[in-house]
Amino acid sequence: MPSYTAPTRDIQFVLNEVLDVANSDVPGYSELEPDFTAAVLEECGKLNSEVLAPLNVVGDKEGCRLENGVVRTPTGFKAAFDQVREGGWTGLDMPEEFGGQNMPYVMGIATLEMFASANQAFAMYQGLTHGAASAILVHGSEEQKATYLPKMVNCDWTGTMNLTEPHCGTDLGLMRTKAEPQDDGSYAITGQKIFISAGEHDMADNIIHLVLAKIPGGPEGIKGVSLFIVPKFLLKEDGSLGERNALSCGKIEEKMGIHGNSTCVMNYDGAKGFLIGEMHKGMRAMFTMMNEARLGVGMQGLAQAEAAYQNAVAYAKDRLQGRAVTGAENPDGPADPLIVHPDIRRSLMDQKSFTEGARAFILWGAMLIDQAQRAGDKDADGLISLLTPVIKGFLTDRGYDMTVQAQQVYGGHGYIEEWGMSQYTRDARIAMIYEGANGVQALDLVGRKLAQDGGKHVMAFFDMVKGFCKENGDVEGMAPFIEPLKAASKDLQAAGMFFMQNGMKNPNAALAGSYDFMHLFGHVCLGLMWARSAKVALVALAGGASDKGFYENKLTTGRYYMARQLPMTATHLARIQSGADVVMTLPADAF
Amino acid sequence: MPSYTAPTRDIQFVLNEVLDVANSDVPGYSELEPDFTAAVLEECGKLNSEVLAPLNVVGDKEGCRLENGVVRTPTGFKAAFDQVREGGWTGLDMPEEFGGQNMPYVMGIATLEMFASANQAFAMYQGLTHGAASAILVHGSEEQKATYLPKMVNCDWTGTMNLTEPHCGTDLGLMRTKAEPQDDGSYAITGQKIFISAGEHDMADNIIHLVLAKIPGGPEGIKGVSLFIVPKFLLKEDGSLGERNALSCGKIEEKMGIHGNSTCVMNYDGAKGFLIGEMHKGMRAMFTMMNEARLGVGMQGLAQAEAAYQNAVAYAKDRLQGRAVTGAENPDGPADPLIVHPDIRRSLMDQKSFTEGARAFILWGAMLIDQAQRAGDKDADGLISLLTPVIKGFLTDRGYDMTVQAQQVYGGHGYIEEWGMSQYTRDARIAMIYEGANGVQALDLVGRKLAQDGGKHVMAFFDMVKGFCKENGDVEGMAPFIEPLKAASKDLQAAGMFFMQNGMKNPNAALAGSYDFMHLFGHVCLGLMWARSAKVALVALAGGASDKGFYENKLTTGRYYMARQLPMTATHLARIQSGADVVMTLPADAF
Repeated sequence: MPSYTAPTRDIQFVLNEVLDVANSDVPGYSELEPDFTAAVLEECGKLNSEVLAPLNVVGDKEGCRLENGVVRTPTGFKAAFDQVREGGWTGLDMPEEFGGQNMPYVMGIATLEMFASANQAFAMYQGLTHGAASAILVHGSEEQKATYLPKMVNCDWTGTMNLTEPHCGTDLGLMRTKAEPQDDGSYAITGQKIFISAGEHDMADNIIHLVLAKIPGGPEGIKGVSLFIVPKFLLKEDGSLGERNALSCGKIEEKMGIHGNSTCVMNYDGAKGFLIGEMHKGMRAMFTMMNEARLGVGMQGLAQAEAAYQNAVAYAKDRLQGRAVTGAENPDGPADPLIVHPDIRRSLMDQKSFTEGARAFILWGAMLIDQAQRAGDKDADGLISLLTPVIKGFLTDRGYDMTVQAQQVYGGHGYIEEWGMSQYTRDARIAMIYEGANGVQALDLVGRKLAQDGGKHVMAFFDMVKGFCKENGDVEGMAPFIEPLKAASKDLQAAGMFFMQNGMKNPNAALAGSYDFMHLFGHVCLGLMWARSAKVALVALAGGASDKGFYENKLTTGRYYMARQLPMTATHLARIQSGADVVMTLPADAF
Repeated sequence: MPSYTAPTRDIQFVLNEVLDVANSDVPGYSELEPDFTAAVLEECGKLNSEVLAPLNVVGDKEGCRLENGVVRTPTGFKAAFDQVREGGWTGLDMPEEFGGQNMPYVMGIATLEMFASANQAFAMYQGLTHGAASAILVHGSEEQKATYLPKMVNCDWTGTMNLTEPHCGTDLGLMRTKAEPQDDGSYAITGQKIFISAGEHDMADNIIHLVLAKIPGGPEGIKGVSLFIVPKFLLKEDGSLGERNALSCGKIEEKMGIHGNSTCVMNYDGAKGFLIGEMHKGMRAMFTMMNEARLGVGMQGLAQAEAAYQNAVAYAKDRLQGRAVTGAENPDGPADPLIVHPDIRRSLMDQKSFTEGARAFILWGAMLIDQAQRAGDKDADGLISLLTPVIKGFLTDRGYDMTVQAQQVYGGHGYIEEWGMSQYTRDARIAMIYEGANGVQALDLVGRKLAQDGGKHVMAFFDMVKGFCKENGDVEGMAPFIEPLKAASKDLQAAGMFFMQNGMKNPNAALAGSYDFMHLFGHVCLGLMWARSAKVALVALAGGASDKGFYENKLTTGRYYMARQLPMTATHLARIQSGADVVMTLPADAF
């Protein structure tokens, strides 16, 4: 059975050394001293490796069962959820007034990595609740906040997001669920929603559904969508649980993975709902949460890759097979461990250089969100808005690839469920799809974000890369980082230029290259993260750091990424520059 | 539920037009007239789309069950197997004297595509039998051939290959299963074998296990391995079934996919076995079948991609979501079909250009095997020996990627088992692992095949590409094919040169780039196949072919591959040229 150890040292490296959080002037960051964050991360790591990771396989095997309208979660989930609640983990970055600990979002994300690595299906129950609570926090009335948040912040009540319907996912304008105004100011919600994660389960007293629906007579399409709070149990005057609302779980989907999470078909049969925010402005309410939610899903890509990688390493060190081509390294044994073989190392280095680079990228993204929200920094807000589809799309695609590679290290055993590597692949697969399929992320990036605010944010990104390269171009030891980063960034600029020159005449010329652009951008971001990490490592080594090996290994791993992964940018650029013609010419009936 | 339609027109295009089989002087090829092959393919396609494809989901859901030593295959498998037997499909390319139809191997492979697309788990029962029968055909005594082949060619008895043991897969020298000589000339086989596909089931009267084992006192390691026939039921003098042999299925593995195939742990407890071929030369017997077996697995990569692609196309045409950026294409409907969106097309073109190129590649490979075996062509033998790891490794990796892309077209529905797209991904995953994991294929390619016969075969390949480019460089309409092919081939040569210059001093410098080299080689092969196909299409169009659209679409699809896929060769080359340092430097304990 696979195991998981939280990579606290690596997370600390990013927080304290790469991002230097404690010295940032973002409100609340001064508390993030290394000792404090270390204590939080150690505690969280312990909970995850000891309690949640062992339940990962249990959740996969047992799945969730719907019996007479009640969903039974896998053995052990409920007790573990209580432990998570008791530890205060669910409200780490929520306001104190609602029972949270008011830490910055960057700490929420740093701990989320551990939950998502240890048990993604389990982590979704609290993750969805966090998302729903955030929506109420930003868009709810004072009364709504007071009513729901204290219970949701500590996950006594969990939350859901209801967007998709059988005939519409990405194109929510086609939505049919309707919300009819009632005399008491509430709405009667009627319709069917699908793919509702944690839609029904036995781990909380109440479930607060956030449901998108159309109020009859409103604008057509997406402009007529409103957001509603629809509790499983209605509340009495005193706030205690009252009668059951007219909603039910009609079915649990059988999925490729994340079996431990109940993915429900939810039927609303005139259920009582309460409008959040303005009428017909439901999409705006959803969009304000999008950056966070998509960053969280991007984290799942990294998290599954990390967990799979750890087990691949253990197997590669343990399994004896063949001899090193340069001479036996385990001469007393019947064979050498797999890790002596260059191609196994190539695979492990792919994985390691991805997860470490991705961690820096995503924690930086979380810091940008804090800068935007806690310090009102508009530039940070614009930049994270630009980077969000890259974080979501690139990290989940590449994270999935890494779970496939980790599985491959196991050979035949990787295909056998008993060994647990298949689950990482199956679980990681969903992150490429939900919260906006990755093709939609690419469309968002190229079709909306690039040109946002007159292209200001992508220009700022290029300036940042250029500035870093200029500042560090002559620093000893930085050449293996600066040169590839410059080349990759040049490719990204050339791709942007191609879109500008051709996309106006023919939008397909830009959109046919959108997926490649998203990946090109992702590689440049990871390249930048590795260059920053290298700088930090060189400074630490020059300063006589005691754990010399740690920093030397950072440099080696970073050099691998620059030498072996960054060259992908040239291929992405070539594809983009081939334009729309080869993509759009074939008649639809010739497919 | 997914459906499958055999791509007979495309297979015919490769056989009749690209390879021009009927005009080849390979013995037996003159019979492969278009009318004849069309009849065979149509019939086979019908059986597969109507009988075997509908059982694919059944096999996945039900799996195989072990009850009191007996394995029950999924509902409908046995009746379908009878239909396959009755149609004579199992012995299509087997000698007439043993009940086969003596067709060339290329026809066996052309029909195998359909079986592997329609139902991979099912197709393995006959596939393994084919492999075991081939081993007996080449290495067995006359008596062994007469005893087993008539029953195996028509699959009345099925076969298995027993190589892997719990502690050794790739490194078979570590094998522990022993074969002790008995007074009657037979051997007593004792040991445990794992991952034995079709090791036990209820669809045949007898199962003929081919088992690798060591005769005590023989040479150490891989040189002391011999191959044995170990029937489930021993035969009486008259050839009828006698007593049960001392072997049993101890367990069926729970796997990520191919649930319809019983993957068994086989226990041999002094089972009676009969030596095939020479003592201690068991690996040689296995290796002679390797090209065929690996080509068959490569075909699974293509086959699963093809089946998944067909369903992705159907969904993309059916599902309405969003509007074309250039204006509504389905103005009367609530939205446009997915296929109007450039990124969906990009994905479908990736898939289509892969499957069609891969089909040409693999059928060409099968023709090389026929040239080698039927015409004794040593150059063809050398070339297919070189290309085999590329066919197996590249096509299964890329084929898997294509199933993931096809699944992605379905959005959320792709993750739900009910829609069937997850199964293609899960089933396709195994082909990257079995019959030599793809990293081992890369090692075989770079460590053995490149330098085989003094590097003669890779030189011949380069000459072939060069010759084609020279001959067609000025042909009108060929420029979009020749230029990218030249560039890709140059990258491949540069990679080979890098290995020559650095691999002698440091073998790791070559092996650290082996996986990229395999993919680089694969892209060049598909580029060559597309260039050849384009040539054929241009000639057909110039000759006023009646189905003009077919040939124009070939050109468009080929141009896509050249423009969007071939640029990968530059990235593979850059990785290779980065050498061993970044791969080998990290200390093992730093992973």
